[in-house]
Amino acid sequence: MNTSDSRERIAILDTTLRDGEQSLAATLNVEEKLEIARALERMGIDVIEAGFPASSHGDFHAVERISHEIRDCTICALTRAVKEDIAAAAEALKGAAHPRIQTGLGVSDIHIRHKLHTTREEALRRGVAAIRYAKRFVEDVQYYAEDAGRADPDYLYRVIAAAIDAGATVINIPDTTGYTLAEEFGALIRGITENVPNIQRATISVHCHNDLGMATANTIAGLRNGARQAEVTVNGIGERAGNTALEEVVMAIATRHDLVPLKTGVDARRIYPVSTLVSQLTGISVPANKAIVGANAFSHSSGIHQDGVLKERTTYEIIDPHAVGVPTSSIVLSARSGRHGLRHRLSELGHALSEDEFEKVYQRFLDVADKKQRVDTRDLEEIVSDEVRMFFAETYQLEHIQVSCGNNSIPTATVRLGGPDGRSYCDAAHGTGPVDAVYRAINRVIKEPNELIEFSVQAITEGIDAVGRVTIRIQTESTPEEEPQVFSGRGADTDIVTASAKAYLFALNRLIAARRETAERARVRKN
Amino acid sequence: MNTSDSRERIAILDTTLRDGEQSLAATLNVEEKLEIARALERMGIDVIEAGFPASSHGDFHAVERISHEIRDCTICALTRAVKEDIAAAAEALKGAAHPRIQTGLGVSDIHIRHKLHTTREEALRRGVAAIRYAKRFVEDVQYYAEDAGRADPDYLYRVIAAAIDAGATVINIPDTTGYTLAEEFGALIRGITENVPNIQRATISVHCHNDLGMATANTIAGLRNGARQAEVTVNGIGERAGNTALEEVVMAIATRHDLVPLKTGVDARRIYPVSTLVSQLTGISVPANKAIVGANAFSHSSGIHQDGVLKERTTYEIIDPHAVGVPTSSIVLSARSGRHGLRHRLSELGHALSEDEFEKVYQRFLDVADKKQRVDTRDLEEIVSDEVRMFFAETYQLEHIQVSCGNNSIPTATVRLGGPDGRSYCDAAHGTGPVDAVYRAINRVIKEPNELIEFSVQAITEGIDAVGRVTIRIQTESTPEEEPQVFSGRGADTDIVTASAKAYLFALNRLIAARRETAERARVRKN
Repeated sequence: MNTSDSRERIAILDTTLRDGEQSLAATLNVEEKLEIARALERMGIDVIEAGFPASSHGDFHAVERISHEIRDCTICALTRAVKEDIAAAAEALKGAAHPRIQTGLGVSDIHIRHKLHTTREEALRRGVAAIRYAKRFVEDVQYYAEDAGRADPDYLYRVIAAAIDAGATVINIPDTTGYTLAEEFGALIRGITENVPNIQRATISVHCHNDLGMATANTIAGLRNGARQAEVTVNGIGERAGNTALEEVVMAIATRHDLVPLKTGVDARRIYPVSTLVSQLTGISVPANKAIVGANAFSHSSGIHQDGVLKERTTYEIIDPHAVGVPTSSIVLSARSGRHGLRHRLSELGHALSEDEFEKVYQRFLDVADKKQRVDTRDLEEIVSDEVRMFFAETYQLEHIQVSCGNNSIPTATVRLGGPDGRSYCDAAHGTGPVDAVYRAINRVIKEPNELIEFSVQAITEGIDAVGRVTIRIQTESTPEEEPQVFSGRGADTDIVTASAKAYLFALNRLIAARRETAERARVRKN
Repeated sequence: MNTSDSRERIAILDTTLRDGEQSLAATLNVEEKLEIARALERMGIDVIEAGFPASSHGDFHAVERISHEIRDCTICALTRAVKEDIAAAAEALKGAAHPRIQTGLGVSDIHIRHKLHTTREEALRRGVAAIRYAKRFVEDVQYYAEDAGRADPDYLYRVIAAAIDAGATVINIPDTTGYTLAEEFGALIRGITENVPNIQRATISVHCHNDLGMATANTIAGLRNGARQAEVTVNGIGERAGNTALEEVVMAIATRHDLVPLKTGVDARRIYPVSTLVSQLTGISVPANKAIVGANAFSHSSGIHQDGVLKERTTYEIIDPHAVGVPTSSIVLSARSGRHGLRHRLSELGHALSEDEFEKVYQRFLDVADKKQRVDTRDLEEIVSDEVRMFFAETYQLEHIQVSCGNNSIPTATVRLGGPDGRSYCDAAHGTGPVDAVYRAINRVIKEPNELIEFSVQAITEGIDAVGRVTIRIQTESTPEEEPQVFSGRGADTDIVTASAKAYLFALNRLIAARRETAERARVRKN
């Protein structure tokens, strides 16, 4: 790449845990958020936006835990421009080595009048007051100018200047509606750099959405015009069409440093492993043709019949898959590889497992190797994910499952679950299909009312004997006391009905653990 | 929108059937391609790039059929700059009302030297000769300047001027590697409009790829700088990270006509139905957070617990889902809706079925309604797709299937298939899971060696009794005479094991039909 390295360093703020998670049906628990935060720290992310502490106890707790554990990144917490939010954020960030509070409000007339029901001057005053209040707790305060694209430029410049005078260290310009064109967004940022007199005392940040497929282009346009922080999520997850994708921004900068003479602190080789981790923990799969991290991102149509060759591949410069950490899946293990072979391969893949964890993975590995002979990297990743990345107590365990189904029979399932009291519980049910029957049988043992809102199966490896990964989402019932909550579950097995049972139990165990935690917190608060 | 309508009209060239299909493991048969072409014609696409006739008999035949049937669109066929390709394209396009031949070659030194092994002058001469030859057959000739972004601008301008003098009506500037930034690509187009003296005699076309997530931004930048044709695919399908998405370009132009004073002839309300059709026929599912057509594209995080409300939704302008044809899924049918209710709903959804087709759909509808009580729009779409959109002879039919499985038993399946001779064939097999067992049992009846390369299940509707759609891809064995071929299959059922069996039979029947067609063609040629 660039050897002289005169490139200016920009900051990456990852908001997977806030804008990515909060807005989606991807409720992660605290342990899972921590695991993602650790992975982000390892890959060299500068700022982790960890949550919105005033929004829920879960978010507060997650920001608190992440603040204590992650030492190398700035930990950012979101607030509205109100004292209670800021006080909650400051409290949650207490343990952080580098805490940052993000606060702000709308700057367009439509937001000021119709959402905030106030005047420009009052909105400006409110923003400044919020920054001053946040400065009592932390040095590093980020101010977001919501709907900046539709604001009167002169007012916007005035707001930003006042925010910087009040102590804001970072000014976040979001493309709130995701409808900006690249040149337009670039011009907005350029206008700020040219018209805000004290702008050199703060960093401009860009936060884009992908509603018209332009998030990355807008982000790059912002950086080329003076922004020095990009706000992104892993795999581009987020509400509606998602946020700007971390991997696209990092690789666009790395690949096109001729036009974007900037650099990030991100270790690109961690991109693929982090993408996989986030996909597994959120249950949001990565589309095959997702740029950089999709299964097809680097594949050409080799093997497809075509008499005339359209293109000579060698003349096309594409990113080297290894540069973004895509593993070579050629290394195959079998039952004969033994503990030593497995341990070696796992450490190559970057998994540092405890002895207990390794033993669990090894037993599952033998089980899979017994069924399908050739166990490749993707199978291994699935096993590790299944056996190790389960960040909650398993109240119920799957002991036995047996199913019969077909197009002229009534699908029927029998399940036996190990319960929290050490006893086994067995029941049977019929359903519209084998998965339905299994879920109804489990429901007869675990009486937690819920609705299945998503169900999908992906084969992880090729071949008729592939390991399938089931991902589900369930939603609890809405009650007068409680809004419905969503829990995701995953399970992998060569038998997709068994994988479905595991995924359902995973989600139910998670639901039970969350209930217990909530009850525990209520008990603590009462005392 | 804009009432004065001074907006300039641009052309949309859809290359779903060429760059989308050819490059992916999405081998559609001729009838399926025709169905997509009809849908593109109905939605108001200007140009359909139907295939690359010289590449295979299948492509030739598809271009020929589409040329005969589609009367309102220009039908375009791709060629290399060689006589045989152009002659084949001209032959395939013979029946077209508005035929177009696309030809061209590399214009960058890296392409000229390392791929074409020639000189600039010789490459220019070859391109001009190709255009002149194509002009013998058709008036409308599109020239592609491959790798234009890396070409010496002066040479590029000279090539384009020569191409226009030779008769090219459209000059296609592809972002071959998908690595261009928006401003850079816009500047490339602007340079062409400013430096090619005869450019007003041709239309500039832009053809972008999404390797860095910038395809749409680059396309819009091209249009803002003088291009008047955009090349796109439905859902953005295509090699690697895909092509520019039709829906994003059309809606970016429609939404941002303040900055892009252009218009297309596309009926936006057809976007969602066409997206669904292409997804079903190619077996390439639409990611949930795909802009415009993804399941989450218009959804907000309502229903998710959140004590503090982050955003007031009403101040955000987003595209109205109805404007792009997203159906309201609130209308639910039950078994009591009867033939009349079903017929009414199907016609509302735009399905014009024959009596035979309707009866098939009605029987399946009763079957599903019996199992799950509430049948909504998405279930109906799945049933129609399953029963009507099967564009090949069903050599084998699923008569009976019965399966037993579980984590402590050996998964075993029995299948009975109706064969081509009117007889039934029954066999059983065990496997690593229920789907594996079913596929092995089917393999014992239908002896067509193949490998399963993709398998996925999506629940179409919510709830434990959801209808699941299974999508698979199988690949034939490579032989000395034949390259491996890929066939996709799909099946929907409340029982995912039954749906898996249907999907596998679908793919196998397609494979058998393709074999028969190839043999038939060989026989015809011999005589």
